Amino acid sequence: MVARRTARDLRNENRFEVLHALFERGPSTRQELTRHTGLSAATVATLVTEFLTEEILQIATVERTGVGRPYERLTINPGRGRIVGVDVAETYVDATVYDVALGVLGHAEVALDEHENDQDYVVAGIVRAVGASVAASGAGRETILGVGISLPGHVHPDAGVSVFAPNWDWHDVRIEELLEAGLGISVYVDNPLKAVALAEMWFGIGRTVDSMAVVNLGTGVGAGIALDGTLIRGKANNAGEWGHTLLQLDGRECRCGRRGCVEAYLGVHGLETTLAELAPGHPALRTAGQRDFVQAVAEGLTAGDEALTALVERTAHYLAAALGDLVNLLDIPRLTLTGWTTRALASWLLPAVRAELPRHVLPGSRPGLAVEASPVLGNPVSLGMAAFALEQFLIRLGLAGPASTRPQRTPGQVAAGGS
Amino acid sequence: MVARRTARDLRNENRFEVLHALFERGPSTRQELTRHTGLSAATVATLVTEFLTEEILQIATVERTGVGRPYERLTINPGRGRIVGVDVAETYVDATVYDVALGVLGHAEVALDEHENDQDYVVAGIVRAVGASVAASGAGRETILGVGISLPGHVHPDAGVSVFAPNWDWHDVRIEELLEAGLGISVYVDNPLKAVALAEMWFGIGRTVDSMAVVNLGTGVGAGIALDGTLIRGKANNAGEWGHTLLQLDGRECRCGRRGCVEAYLGVHGLETTLAELAPGHPALRTAGQRDFVQAVAEGLTAGDEALTALVERTAHYLAAALGDLVNLLDIPRLTLTGWTTRALASWLLPAVRAELPRHVLPGSRPGLAVEASPVLGNPVSLGMAAFALEQFLIRLGLAGPASTRPQRTPGQVAAGGS
Repeated sequence: MVARRTARDLRNENRFEVLHALFERGPSTRQELTRHTGLSAATVATLVTEFLTEEILQIATVERTGVGRPYERLTINPGRGRIVGVDVAETYVDATVYDVALGVLGHAEVALDEHENDQDYVVAGIVRAVGASVAASGAGRETILGVGISLPGHVHPDAGVSVFAPNWDWHDVRIEELLEAGLGISVYVDNPLKAVALAEMWFGIGRTVDSMAVVNLGTGVGAGIALDGTLIRGKANNAGEWGHTLLQLDGRECRCGRRGCVEAYLGVHGLETTLAELAPGHPALRTAGQRDFVQAVAEGLTAGDEALTALVERTAHYLAAALGDLVNLLDIPRLTLTGWTTRALASWLLPAVRAELPRHVLPGSRPGLAVEASPVLGNPVSLGMAAFALEQFLIRLGLAGPASTRPQRTPGQVAAGGS
Repeated sequence: MVARRTARDLRNENRFEVLHALFERGPSTRQELTRHTGLSAATVATLVTEFLTEEILQIATVERTGVGRPYERLTINPGRGRIVGVDVAETYVDATVYDVALGVLGHAEVALDEHENDQDYVVAGIVRAVGASVAASGAGRETILGVGISLPGHVHPDAGVSVFAPNWDWHDVRIEELLEAGLGISVYVDNPLKAVALAEMWFGIGRTVDSMAVVNLGTGVGAGIALDGTLIRGKANNAGEWGHTLLQLDGRECRCGRRGCVEAYLGVHGLETTLAELAPGHPALRTAGQRDFVQAVAEGLTAGDEALTALVERTAHYLAAALGDLVNLLDIPRLTLTGWTTRALASWLLPAVRAELPRHVLPGSRPGLAVEASPVLGNPVSLGMAAFALEQFLIRLGLAGPASTRPQRTPGQVAAGGS
């Protein structure tokens, strides 16, 4: 279950380091990859040859400088195949088709009835969304190298099992088998917090820092955490349940059954509860669903609504306090926010959170303290799941280990690769 | 600052694995070490030869089985030298002399006036305590291989600096230099949470699990955390400040300046505050200091005092909730308690905490959930600091890297070594 690091994993991670460098830099020569990764020239040459053989990389351009050998500039071969990343929530399935360089090719969304918890119903919805996204991308089904699917709740990726999905009352559903039967494609399942963390590690602030927390704000709230380049999974892949740490002992009822959890204040239902406390008759409370509510809040804030301004102030107070806990416990001063509440409300929430956060943080963790909206574009859950599926494809080729980590650099190597 | 893992560290950790196996098992043959560590026989043979050359190990017994080569049973060479582990708090310096097998040889304690924050005063107290402990152990000063000193507050071990000690108003004190000048011995400084974590990893539940939190309950409270065998330090060695995560937003004032921190409820002053709420005139509140207060509570509980029974119930509620946060965030279901509040009150607190903890924990993290008093004997801060100082000595010999980690095992190796 738990990713264990061995000398073998470290070798495998060197391969990922070469891929990551190409994701970050775009087309690069072997010399540039050597400089950027801090690996030896011989290691880079060997890995590049392996990737070229498997057509994961291709030669983009050849430069001749007059004398000596020409310089080949390498790039990820987007035509090598397609990867599908899928974000399954209680109310929708969002499927996105990517090329191997994780550029978006097509997208489809299917609505789910949140009161329907039958396995066949959910599987059928996922199969339909994947099919529609593949059709939208124009890709042939035979070009799909793998599908990564995020499921809500407790997911055990090594066993391909949805251990527990509270909203659906699922227990130990062998979901990977069901989906592979339905799709006829290799499937990898995981939990959305792990997906947003991997997306941030590959495409967000993880490109410049090794330790970070990505805080997801939506119906539920949670954190994807990476420490020293390693995604933190916990004993049973449940790490990151920051939404179920305390804000207020014996406070509001949380849907997990406990009282006073962060999610009861910062999940969308928590925002609704706060607004009902501040302004019981507010029209935003009469919207049909959570997305409409958040949309109405954003529109009201734009119009200068006073009760909603008070809601943002109160919510920023809760958020700054709860982020302070993450920083104090793990001493990770780089935080990003993601999720649809973030996308709708960040321009109001972030300035207030930034102003308040330092007073919740111990002095030693304040230097470099920064909280920002995640720079990852598109749906980070789908993107992270596509990245996991790409890792799985490379593992099947014998080109990688399942570490989901960035290689560790020595301080000297960081300096050398920092340009 | 942050320990980074490279292929070189992994090789070094193999050496620690051999030492750890000997700490765990006592005298062992090379074959037993091979089986226990999961390393190759050739690796174990090479490492044992290096350790024998440096006289870190010695041959305890030679067994002849009639045919073939005799079996040499190896053991740590306690006579190789002495290590001093020092626990510096606001009110005392506790110094313990250990042999290289980390057996206790002698001990001394020096009182500090908590209102005196002069560097020279504190350094003189530490020098006096170390000298007295060495004298008590009967060891010659020339046999001391190193001194590990835990200092309260924010400590930067790589720079040998006490970055910030709130009680003393110290900022960026080059404490290692001052102490090495005073002692004439190589000094390593760190923070007590890191020391209790290392002690637990080497001598406590870390002998059977890779991920754990050691929760220290005393004047201050905090957690030492290890994930997958790696001590979590954070960006600036400040990780583990669980005492400064929230129990109650905008609740009791904490000495860190924030409101509602766990420490304001579970530190000794927090217990006094709770008792004052429950029974304002209680005689235990008239004791002279925090240790006397905790002692009076233990005595009153033994006598069946009702207000103190209510204090334990309330405190167990706070503790179960705050431990639940650690489990939910990091998915580490193995927790130990240490510190002098634990030593005095565990027999009353633990049953109540065990009864309540599961309802604070998400279902996925409940399997295997256990909280217990730390099995580490003696002062875990001194022991952990001695273990750090031993690591430093091995590093100076060229025998180890500064990883402070246990090597990662593959699941197969865990099974092989699990006997």
